[in-house]
Amino acid sequence: MSNPGLSYDELHEAWPLLSIEDRVEGFTLLSRAESEELFDMLDAREQAELILDLPPGRRRIWMRLLAPDDAADVIQETESEEDRAVLLDLLDEPTRKEVLALLAYAEDEAGGLMNPRFARLRPDMTVDAAISYLRRQREEQVETIYYAYVLDNQQHLKGIVSLRELVTASPHKQVREVMNTEVISVQEETDQEDLTHIFAEHDLAAIPVLDENGHMKGIVTVDDIVDVVREEATEDMHKIGGTEALDAPYLQVDLLEMLKKRAGWLAGLVLLGFLSVLVMRHYEGLLDNAVILVLFVPLIISSGGNSGSQAATLVVRAMALDEVRPRDWWRVIRREVAVGLTLGTTLGIIGLITSVFWLSFFDSGGGHHFAIALTVAISILGVVLWGTIAGSMLPFLLRACSFDPASASAPLVATLVDASGLVIYLGIASIVLSGMLF
Amino acid sequence: MSNPGLSYDELHEAWPLLSIEDRVEGFTLLSRAESEELFDMLDAREQAELILDLPPGRRRIWMRLLAPDDAADVIQETESEEDRAVLLDLLDEPTRKEVLALLAYAEDEAGGLMNPRFARLRPDMTVDAAISYLRRQREEQVETIYYAYVLDNQQHLKGIVSLRELVTASPHKQVREVMNTEVISVQEETDQEDLTHIFAEHDLAAIPVLDENGHMKGIVTVDDIVDVVREEATEDMHKIGGTEALDAPYLQVDLLEMLKKRAGWLAGLVLLGFLSVLVMRHYEGLLDNAVILVLFVPLIISSGGNSGSQAATLVVRAMALDEVRPRDWWRVIRREVAVGLTLGTTLGIIGLITSVFWLSFFDSGGGHHFAIALTVAISILGVVLWGTIAGSMLPFLLRACSFDPASASAPLVATLVDASGLVIYLGIASIVLSGMLF
Repeated sequence: MSNPGLSYDELHEAWPLLSIEDRVEGFTLLSRAESEELFDMLDAREQAELILDLPPGRRRIWMRLLAPDDAADVIQETESEEDRAVLLDLLDEPTRKEVLALLAYAEDEAGGLMNPRFARLRPDMTVDAAISYLRRQREEQVETIYYAYVLDNQQHLKGIVSLRELVTASPHKQVREVMNTEVISVQEETDQEDLTHIFAEHDLAAIPVLDENGHMKGIVTVDDIVDVVREEATEDMHKIGGTEALDAPYLQVDLLEMLKKRAGWLAGLVLLGFLSVLVMRHYEGLLDNAVILVLFVPLIISSGGNSGSQAATLVVRAMALDEVRPRDWWRVIRREVAVGLTLGTTLGIIGLITSVFWLSFFDSGGGHHFAIALTVAISILGVVLWGTIAGSMLPFLLRACSFDPASASAPLVATLVDASGLVIYLGIASIVLSGMLF
Repeated sequence: MSNPGLSYDELHEAWPLLSIEDRVEGFTLLSRAESEELFDMLDAREQAELILDLPPGRRRIWMRLLAPDDAADVIQETESEEDRAVLLDLLDEPTRKEVLALLAYAEDEAGGLMNPRFARLRPDMTVDAAISYLRRQREEQVETIYYAYVLDNQQHLKGIVSLRELVTASPHKQVREVMNTEVISVQEETDQEDLTHIFAEHDLAAIPVLDENGHMKGIVTVDDIVDVVREEATEDMHKIGGTEALDAPYLQVDLLEMLKKRAGWLAGLVLLGFLSVLVMRHYEGLLDNAVILVLFVPLIISSGGNSGSQAATLVVRAMALDEVRPRDWWRVIRREVAVGLTLGTTLGIIGLITSVFWLSFFDSGGGHHFAIALTVAISILGVVLWGTIAGSMLPFLLRACSFDPASASAPLVATLVDASGLVIYLGIASIVLSGMLF
C-alpha cells in the first residue's frame, strides 16, 4: 500500500476510493483499538464487504463484534446466497438463531430494526436486586441497561423502569412499585416510517416491540431511528427527482444498477411526452398560420411544470411527515387554488410585460403585440393554476390507489402538465387571436 | 366547545383544525397529567401559540416546565418582539439568563441546540460519591444523568463516564480512573448538518459542546438530532421542489407567507424562460418552413429537463449526506457522462421508433419520416446527455460559489435545460434536414 501509516480517521476518509487490497492492508496495519473504531464507523454495506475481503481466519472476530440487529443488517447487505451463508457461519450458535429470526422480518419493519437483547426484570424483584441483576445482564451485551423492561412469566410486558429511577429509589421497594405501566409500544410489523413519527412525537430513547400475543420481542433505540429518518428522506427525495430509490451511496452504486433505476421513469415519460406531440398535431393548422405562437410554447409549458413540481413536492413531504393526511385533500385543494390563482396572476403579469417588450423589439406578430402578449399572460395564469392543482392532487390520487405518493415526482408532474398546458395555451390562442393572425 | 370530553390523544389529533378558543378550552379541561402529556407532544411552534393563548395567570407553569433549550426553541417560534418578551418574563431569573445565552446562538448551530444543564463530576471524586452527586443533580433537571461530564476547576472537559460504568465500577475508585478520555466533542458554532453526520457516524447518545477555549457549555442529545435530520431533509426537499423552505407544517403556514416562499423562484424562472423565446425566435425561419419540427419541441425539451432534474436531485442528496464532496466532481461527471450517453441512447431509440410510427400515422413531414424521426432521436440523445451533465454539475457550481447546492432545484435545472435543449434540437434539425424540408 502506498501510505502504510494511515490513521483510522484518514483511512475512513479515503475508504470509498481505496482498492480492496488497500482496504484490507490498511485495516490490518491498524492497532486493535483503532481497527475497532474504524469498523464501527463503516456502514453495514462496507462492513459486509470488508469482512468478506479479509482472509477467512480473520473474519470471525469482526462478525462476532456485532450486536444481533447489526449482524442482521450486515448480512442483508450481501449480494449472494453464498456470502450470506459464509457470514452466518461465523456467528456462534445462539446468536445465529437470533439473527435468523431477525432476517425473517422485512427490513423496514420494527421487527427488522429491533435488537432482541434488552434488559429484563421481574415485577417482584427488589430495587436492590434489580440493580445487581442489570449489572450482570450488561455482560450479555444488551442494547441498553438504562431502560429495563419488566416482564411476567409469559414474557408479557408489564412496565418499564429506567436505571435512573432504580438508582434514586429506595432499595427495598419492589420493581412493580417503581415501574411505569403506561408504556408506548409497537408491533413487530409496524412500518419504520410510522416508527419515526412515534419517536419524534414522544421524544423516546427506546421503544419495546411486541408480537401479536403481547410477548416482548425486542427494542428499537433512537440512534437506529436517526439512520431510518435519513434513509426514508433519501428514498423520498430520489423518487421526487424521478428515480427509483438507490440503496447505496451515489458513488458506490454499480453503474448498471444506477442505469436501471434511472431509465425506467425516463423511458415512461418519453412515451407520455408523445401526448404533447398529439396535442401539437391537433393545433398544427393554427401553428402553421401563426408561427409567432410557437415561440412561447416552451415558456408556457415550463411555467406549468414548475408550479406543478413545486406543489407536488410540498404535498409529498407534508404527507411523509404526517402533516397532511388523505382526508385533508379538501383543505389542500382550497389552499392550492388560492395559491395557484395568485401565483398565476403574478407570473401572468410578468409574462405580459416581458412579452410586450420582446414582441415590440422583434417587431413580430403583425402589429398584434398586445393581443399576443395577453394570450401568453392568460395562458400562463391558466397553466400555473392547473399545474398547482394537478401537482398537489396527484400525491393524494396515488395514495388512494395504494401507490407511494412520492412517485408524484417533479418530472412526472411536469410531463403531465406539458400536454394539458398546450391544450390551455393553444385553446386560448384560438379564441383570443381568432380573426387577427389566422 | 362542541366536544368537551376529548382525551389528550384525540385533542392532539384534532389540534391543527381547532380554533384558538377550542384549543384553550380543550386543554384546560384535561387533567394535569394529561395536559402535560399533550403539551409535550406539541412542537415548539404550537407550544408558543398555546402559552400565549392562555390567560396570563396560567402561562407561567407551562413555560417553567420546559428545559432551557426547549424554552429557547419556543421563544424562537414567536412572531413579535412583544411575545418574545412576554415569554421570557415568565421564566425564573437563572433560567432566563441561560435562555438568553442560548438565544444568542444561531438556531442551526450546536450552541443553539444544546442544553446547558448536564451532569458534571470532578475527576477526584470517588465512584460512590459520584453516584450520590448525580442523584442530587437529577433535581436540577439536567438533560440526562446517563452520561456525566468530568470537568476540572476551569470547566475544561477531561473525560466522560456513563452511569452504567459508575454503577458497575468499584465504589472506591476515583472518577478519573474509570472515565473515558477519548471524547468526541463539537464547537458552539458547529453547523447542525455536520452534527447529524457526527451522530450518524459514531452512533452517539449525546455530544458535548465546547467554546473556543475548551470550556464545556452544554450537550446535544440524539433525540434532538432526530428532529434536526427531519428538518434538514424537509428544507432540502422544499428547495429541490423550487420553493424556499417553509418553516412550519404545510397546513399551518400562513397563506401570504406561502406565496412569498413560492413566488420568488417561479417569477425568476419565468424571466429565465424568456431565453427559450429568444432561441425560438432565432430559429423562426426554420420553424416557419418546417412546422412539423414544432410538434416535437415539448417532447424534446422535457426529456432534457427530466434527466437534468433526476441528476441534480441525486447529487444534491448525496452532497447533503456527505457521500459526495466538492473534490469528487470529476468522479461524478465521469459517471454522469456514461449514464447520460446510455440513457440518451435508450430514450433516443424509443423516440425514433415512436416518431416513425406517428409520422406515418399522421402522414406528415413530406415523406421524410425517417429523417425527421432521426433528427428527433439524435436530439433526444443530445439533450439527455446535456441535461444529465448540467443537472449533476450545477450543485457543484452553486457550492463553489458558496450557495446552497439544494438550490439546484428540479424547476431551475429544467428551465435552464429548456433553452439549451432548443439550441441542440433546432441546430441538429438545420443540419440533418437541410435541403429536405427547407
